[in-house]
This record gives sequence, C-alpha cells and structure tokens, in this order.
Amino acid sequence: MPAASIADAATAQGASPAYRELKELLREIAHMRSTLGLLQWDQETYMPAAGSAARAGQKSLLAGLAHERATSPRLGELIAACEGDAALRSDEATAANLREMRRDYDLATKLPGDLVRALAETTSRAQDAWKHAREKNDFASFAPWLDKVLTLTRRKAECYGVPAATGGVPSELYDALLDEYEPSARAAEIETLFRPLEARLSAFVKDLRTRGTRPDDACVKLNIAREKQHAFGQFVIEKCGFRMNAGRLDEVTHPFCEGLAPGDTRLTTRYRESRWTDAFFGTLHEYGHGSYEQGLPIHMELDDPRNRFGEPLGHAVSLGIHESQSRMWENIVGRSRAFWQWAKPHADRMLGSGIERFSAEDVFRAVNVIEPGFIRVEADEGYYNLHIMLRFALERAMIRGDLAVRDLPGAWNERFKALFGVDVPDDTRGCLQDVHWSFGLIGYFPTYTLGNLYAASFWNALKRDLPDVDAKMERGEFAPVLSWFNDKIHRHGRMYPPRELCRRITGADLSTEPLMAYLGAKLGGVYGVS
Amino acid sequence: MPAASIADAATAQGASPAYRELKELLREIAHMRSTLGLLQWDQETYMPAAGSAARAGQKSLLAGLAHERATSPRLGELIAACEGDAALRSDEATAANLREMRRDYDLATKLPGDLVRALAETTSRAQDAWKHAREKNDFASFAPWLDKVLTLTRRKAECYGVPAATGGVPSELYDALLDEYEPSARAAEIETLFRPLEARLSAFVKDLRTRGTRPDDACVKLNIAREKQHAFGQFVIEKCGFRMNAGRLDEVTHPFCEGLAPGDTRLTTRYRESRWTDAFFGTLHEYGHGSYEQGLPIHMELDDPRNRFGEPLGHAVSLGIHESQSRMWENIVGRSRAFWQWAKPHADRMLGSGIERFSAEDVFRAVNVIEPGFIRVEADEGYYNLHIMLRFALERAMIRGDLAVRDLPGAWNERFKALFGVDVPDDTRGCLQDVHWSFGLIGYFPTYTLGNLYAASFWNALKRDLPDVDAKMERGEFAPVLSWFNDKIHRHGRMYPPRELCRRITGADLSTEPLMAYLGAKLGGVYGVS
Repeated sequence: MPAASIADAATAQGASPAYRELKELLREIAHMRSTLGLLQWDQETYMPAAGSAARAGQKSLLAGLAHERATSPRLGELIAACEGDAALRSDEATAANLREMRRDYDLATKLPGDLVRALAETTSRAQDAWKHAREKNDFASFAPWLDKVLTLTRRKAECYGVPAATGGVPSELYDALLDEYEPSARAAEIETLFRPLEARLSAFVKDLRTRGTRPDDACVKLNIAREKQHAFGQFVIEKCGFRMNAGRLDEVTHPFCEGLAPGDTRLTTRYRESRWTDAFFGTLHEYGHGSYEQGLPIHMELDDPRNRFGEPLGHAVSLGIHESQSRMWENIVGRSRAFWQWAKPHADRMLGSGIERFSAEDVFRAVNVIEPGFIRVEADEGYYNLHIMLRFALERAMIRGDLAVRDLPGAWNERFKALFGVDVPDDTRGCLQDVHWSFGLIGYFPTYTLGNLYAASFWNALKRDLPDVDAKMERGEFAPVLSWFNDKIHRHGRMYPPRELCRRITGADLSTEPLMAYLGAKLGGVYGVS
Repeated sequence: MPAASIADAATAQGASPAYRELKELLREIAHMRSTLGLLQWDQETYMPAAGSAARAGQKSLLAGLAHERATSPRLGELIAACEGDAALRSDEATAANLREMRRDYDLATKLPGDLVRALAETTSRAQDAWKHAREKNDFASFAPWLDKVLTLTRRKAECYGVPAATGGVPSELYDALLDEYEPSARAAEIETLFRPLEARLSAFVKDLRTRGTRPDDACVKLNIAREKQHAFGQFVIEKCGFRMNAGRLDEVTHPFCEGLAPGDTRLTTRYRESRWTDAFFGTLHEYGHGSYEQGLPIHMELDDPRNRFGEPLGHAVSLGIHESQSRMWENIVGRSRAFWQWAKPHADRMLGSGIERFSAEDVFRAVNVIEPGFIRVEADEGYYNLHIMLRFALERAMIRGDLAVRDLPGAWNERFKALFGVDVPDDTRGCLQDVHWSFGLIGYFPTYTLGNLYAASFWNALKRDLPDVDAKMERGEFAPVLSWFNDKIHRHGRMYPPRELCRRITGADLSTEPLMAYLGAKLGGVYGVS
C-alpha cells in the first residue's frame, strides 16, 4: 500500500544523511519555486501595471537561484550517492522518488546555459511579435520569430536526445519535447490513438448537426452580474470539495490554477456577464486542476515525514493526467444531467436573473450544444479534440522538417476545412490564435486531448467502484468522486509514470473507446441521434 | 542641485568597476527584499490560512539569502574599495551613498549569527506570549518573555556600541537602538524636546476639556457600507496624488504601507461601518507613507542611471521622517477646515448615508474632537504624543536598568494617571496594549512623536513657500503640497541624515513650537479656547 510505504520509507530512510540532505535541498528549491509562483500569481491578479519591470527583475533573480540549485553538482552527487544505496533503492517509494529526481536533474543539466538564455530571450521577444501579429492578422511578421523558436526548440530536443524506442514503438525528435510534458509518451503512439479518433469525431459531430436537433440555449445567454456568478461558482467548487481555507478564487484575464505551496492552491477565472457559463465551466475546470493540487501529499505539517513538498512524489505526474482532472470536473461532472438536477435550485437562488424560468433539463441540454468555431479555447466537447489534433499534426511536421513555417497558414487552413467543414477567414482565427508556439511550448498540445481520453477512461473505472455515482451527484454528493481520485491519482504524486498509472486505474492501456462512448451517449441523447 | 548631481555622478562613476558591482549586488538584495515584501503583503491580504507554514518557510529562506548577501565579505570589500576611490568620494551624492552603505554593512555585520537567531526565535515566541497575555490580562505570563527580549536587545545594543557623544549631547546604550530607526538621534536630545512638550500638551488638553466646548461628532457615527468608504478613500488619495497605476489599496486587519518595489506601492486599511473616520484617516495616513515611497528616486526605468533602487539614496531616511508624511496628510491636511470645504460635497455624493445633513464645518469640528483614552492607536492629535512619551520614558528606563520588568505595570499606571488624569483599569488597556516590545522594537516609539514634530515644522516651512495653501486645498489642489514634499524630502532618499534634512528644510533644529502652535490654533479654535 503506497501511502503507508511512503511514510515508512521516509522515516526509515532518515538514516541516510545523503537522502536527508537531498530532500532539504529539494525543499529549498520548492520554496523558491513557490515564491516564483506567488510573484506570477500576483502579477496576473493584483500587481499595479507600473510594477512589471521590477517584477521581471524579481522573477529572473529567483528563477536563476532555483535553476542554479536544480543543476548544482552537489545535487548530482547526492542523487548518485542515494542511487548507490541498496537500502534506499529497496523501498518502492524511495526508488520512485530517486528515479524521478534523476530524470529532473538530467533534464535540467542537459541544456547548456547559452541555449537556456537564448530560449528565454527569443521566446520573450517572440511573444511580443506574436501579440502584434495576431492583432494585425500579419503572419509574415511572426514567421521569422517562429522559425527562430523552432530552431532553438529543435536544439533543445537534440540536447535531451531522442528517447529509446520501446515495445516496437519507434521514437523521433519530437518525443524528446513531448516527454517534458507527458513523460514517456511517444508521438507514434499518440498518432495511433488520434488518427481513428479524428475520423470518428469528425463524422460524429457532422452527424449530430445534420441529423440531430440542436437544443435551445437561451438560458446560457442571460445577463448575470459578476458578483452573483462569483458566489455561485465558489459555492459549487466548495461543494465539489475545494478547501477554501487552503485556496482562493480570483478574477484574471487569462484563467489558470496555481498549486502555489502546501495549504495554498489558487484558482482564477474570468466573468462575462452576457454568458455566465464561460466563467462557470472555467471555474469548474480550474477546480479540477486544484483538486489534484490539493490532493498531493504535501498538505500535512511541513515537518511530517510523509510531507513530500519539493520531492517528485509531491508533484503532479504529467500535464495529460492534470488535464484529465480539469476536464472531468468541467465536462463529465459539470455538463451531466445529474449535476444540474442538483445544481439548478442553487442556480435559481444564487444567479436568478431569469434562470428560474428554465428547467434543470433545459440547462443540461443548453450546456451541451455543439458548434464548429475557429477558436480552440471556446470549443465544446464535440469539437475540442479536433482543434488539438490539428495542432499536434502541424507542430510535429514542423519539428520533423516536413512543414516549413511559411507553409503553416496554408496547411492549417486546408486541414481545418477538412475537419470542420468551414474556411478559416484569417490567420488571427487560424494559426495565430494560440500563444503556445511563441513560448516554445511544442509537444504540449497533445496533452489536452490525452487529458480528455484519460478522463473518460478513469470515469469508466470509477463507475465500476461507484455504480450509483449519478444518484450521488443528483443529491450533491461529490465527496466520493473526489476521494476516488485522491486515492487513485493525487496521493501518488509521480510514483507511477502516466502510462502505468492508467493501467493501474483502468486495467488497460489508454484507449479512445471510453471517450467516444461517453460523447456518443450524452451528445447523441441531447441531439436525439442514436 | 542634488537631482542633477545624482544623475551626473551615476553616469560618471559608471567608470568604477567596483562601484558598478556594488550597485549590482545591492540591486539583487533589493529584489530579494521586495519579494519578501510581497510574501508579507500577500500573507496579510489574500493568503489562505492553511498557507502560513509554507509561507514561513519561503520567508525564512529568502530572508536568509538576503542577509547572507548583505553581510557578505565581498560587499565589504567593494565598499572599502569605493571608499578608497577619491574620484567617487568627490561627488556629494556618491559620497552620501557610500556613507550609508557603510552604515548598513556595519550594522548588519556587527551582530553575531547566534544573537540574530536568538532574537528571531525569542521574539517570535514572545509575540505569542504577548497575544495570550493581552487576551487574558495576564502580565505575569508575559514578564519572563519581556525580560528575555530586553536582555537580548541590550546585547544587540552593546554589539552596535554606544554612539559617540556629539556637540555636548551625552550618549547612552539606548541610543544604539534608537539609531536603527532614527539615524543619529539621541535619547538625551529627545528628552529635551519631550519634557516640556509633555507638560504643555498635558495642560493644553486639560484646558480644552475643562474650559472649551466639545463639538458634536454625530456625523462620524453614521453607518456607512465599506464599499462606499473604500470608493471615497480611494478617490481622496488619488486626488492627493497617489498613483493607482503604481499602487493599490486593500483591506487588512492591521493596516500598513508597503513600498514594495519600483512602480508598486501598496496601501492597506480597515473598515468599521459604524465609524467611517477610522478607515478614512487610516487610509490618508497610509497614503502619506505611500507618497514618500512613490516619491523616492526608484520609479523611473530600472536601467536608468538615476534609478536608485537598492541603493541608500533610493530609500527613506528614517522612521520619524516617514511618519511626518503620514501624520501630515492624515492630520494637518485631512483634519483641516480647508480640506473639508473641498471634500464635503464628494463625501455627500460618495458616502451619503445621512452625511448630507451636516455642513463641512460640522465635519471639520467633529474630526477634531479630543478625548482621553487608554489605547494609543485610537488616540487623537491632542493625546497621541502623551501615549508616546510615556512609552519612551519607560523603555529607556528598562534599557538603562532603572526599571525592572516586574515594576512596569505600576510605573505605567502611575505615569498614565499623572498625564491623562484617569486610572488604567487593566494591563490589557495599559502596558500590554502594544505589540512592539514583544517584537524587540525598542527605540521605535519616539519616532512617532518625532514624526508629529517634523510634520508641523515642515508645514510651517511649506507655508512660507505656498502662503495660499489653504485656498488651494479648498479647491482640491493638492499637487503643490505633494510636489513640495517630493522636492524637499522624497527625492533625496538617504542623502541627508534626518537632523540635517530638517535644518535644510526649516532652517532650524527640530523644535516643539510649530506643533504646539498648530494644535493651539486649530484645537483652540474648535473648542473656543484661546
């Protein structure tokens, strides 16, 4: 039983001075990173505009200090010393902790200083260029910057090295990037999942829209004051299990969740008075991320030997698994009939503004309307993954050298037409819409769809253990859902790599069947298409 | 003209590699301290309760890193190298900068590590003991902690060393503590100011209350929602010159002003719905501190050679001068007839709630009611300094060894009766009311009254330059007042020690006459006592 073994090991292995020093050093780095997290959170929430130059100085100083420690020879010596200690290795949790420390240290030390600096400087300028290009619909002005970012990112991938091919799955340069966000994932394997998913999803949404009946969604277009939206959103996430004494919910321009530190998980959202569902599902989404953060084994007393703050076992395992938690709460829970059976009377009471005139069933159906749109972040459950798969294919081709930057808009628009059936009107609503590439975040996009696939697979497994989960949700009982994920995922930190975690939870490799079955049943039902 | 000479020197002295490295090191320390400032601000404003243990870890790590650098041998070498450079010394601003760097470095390195740690640990525990003792009115349980704090504080003073006697003024151990907060101040000199001030003030307030007519203050007891109070307070400080794009105003339990970083000055306040003047004058008070912070030469571009962020010339010169700014805006401006002539229609519009029924003159008179009370932080302009002089005399006696901790309550109560004419009912409302001593803040209290004395003296000087200041304030024109203080005080940072700054501004040494004359005219007028 991992939780017990973690505690035992931590106590027993207190006997190793190297392991103790190692954990102290990692704790120090964690304090620095959590301070960086606060600097960032404050910048997005409350910092006055004129403070941004000094903030950049504070962040860069602290990031430098943290990086210095994370790549220090002392850290390398300590990890090596512990790896050579058979007593430490014999404990499963300690062995996993050391495996992941080695991974982090190697990743951090593989990049030469000049590349790290070049990436920081180029992506910072590329972001400005991207902002400008998006505003002016001027891809040509961004193209040279994307070229530079790609060149540096390819160099980064080469420093990491192409991972070994395993189990008959070939590997490629792109995998070295992917691995940063989704350890041990492989592009070829993802392609095997995505190719049929793309075809089925594309046909499915077309079918819904041609044969089905679009529900009326007037109830999501009521005008509702932000204070009411805030109160309702906070009420719902507390009912879902968010601990407000160990977290916050604030308003920002670009919502995010920051697992800042033990006892301190910060969610953010953005209110649009003409469409309350934007903030509502955004809040539930960030709560999903927050549920993972609040479930990590770092929230007990800091000097409790079970507290893993700073250690790999105290951190989330991958972006895909993280996203599974946010998409699960947002969509599988928050867009379910059972959820609205419970939530609707509370919405009447807290939102008012005419929502009383609609039934729970009306709201359930309205929040499941699908519509092809150009913008990923506004996409619904039917279309979202199509946006992702488009990006995955194009960025992979760019890293491979199969797609030149100048050909990106054409490739984007052609593929979009094939998937969505509509012409992209301009690059601002096409290949210039996302910030990721200007940041150098390549290999990141597929984790969004992996998250959706994981969420549906995990939910199937959950239903085997909690067959009456819908009845529970109708009564507003979300604790069993949260506990199940706490137990299956959160408390383990990085103990099991994503692929293994998935097998432990579902008994099988990741598959697209649960997602297709879930969407087919729910959206098919809403649209009257079987 | 100092401003020009500062810029010239910074440019010219860029030629000295040691001076350049020195400034870089100080800038780094400043970034660390401003990050610490944010950690503290966030803790008081928005941090969830469960985050406090991790916050302590973050703060202690960062404080340690900053201290390490501020006491590093390298810093000492660089200062010494620059002190030996005649070209650097020949510039007035650079010489002042070096003089103050030397002062900071010597103060920081004079304390042995074990004393710093013992002080940190003992005062942290003493604060808990104080909280408990104050709640339970149990001085005996706090006494041993105050004893320990005094012993360590005396040791600290001994490490600093008794300053030299200058100009016929004798010096004593207490001066070493005072010097931390008010550089080059001497207890004997302060006593020379305080003794007659105490007698005159004590007689003055007695006279007002026996011979005068207490104004009606019903208008301060209206019930006003915190949102309205917040909007009005923010409106007024913006009119007084607070730059909201470079600052904030938030609500906390114990209000403070944090000059966080260039472009980032944060004010806080606390709203009491049954007495709107508490928050209003509290906000004006913190704005006064903020006006100093926003006026320091650190808010231009960070790489501008005139930017002094991290250097002594970029920091406020003393607590007394700082307090002069807060008390000036709170009392001399905010409790003036001219101010309310301007502010009253805005209060009607923004506060409403019945205040419309009162005249500007009613409000002016109501906010100048005086009343003897036991609690310093609630004291009015008539009584405030009596509270301070009581504390100064007692803490000085304790450091001298003339007053034992066990005799403190008796001494407090006896002196209080003599000054205020009333019996202290319990230690909670007596010698246990302030947090300062448990923190080891001894030598700090007198700076509050020095601030009041400075404020009145500076205002006299201001009126020579701006004889129509009252007419300006009646029209809501506060920019000339702010500019005057920007020019006379803020932009100089620590260029001139407080005593010299006072002489430059007023043409004379600090005196109690301006304060007595100001209080006599205003409160005498309000009470109808000439």
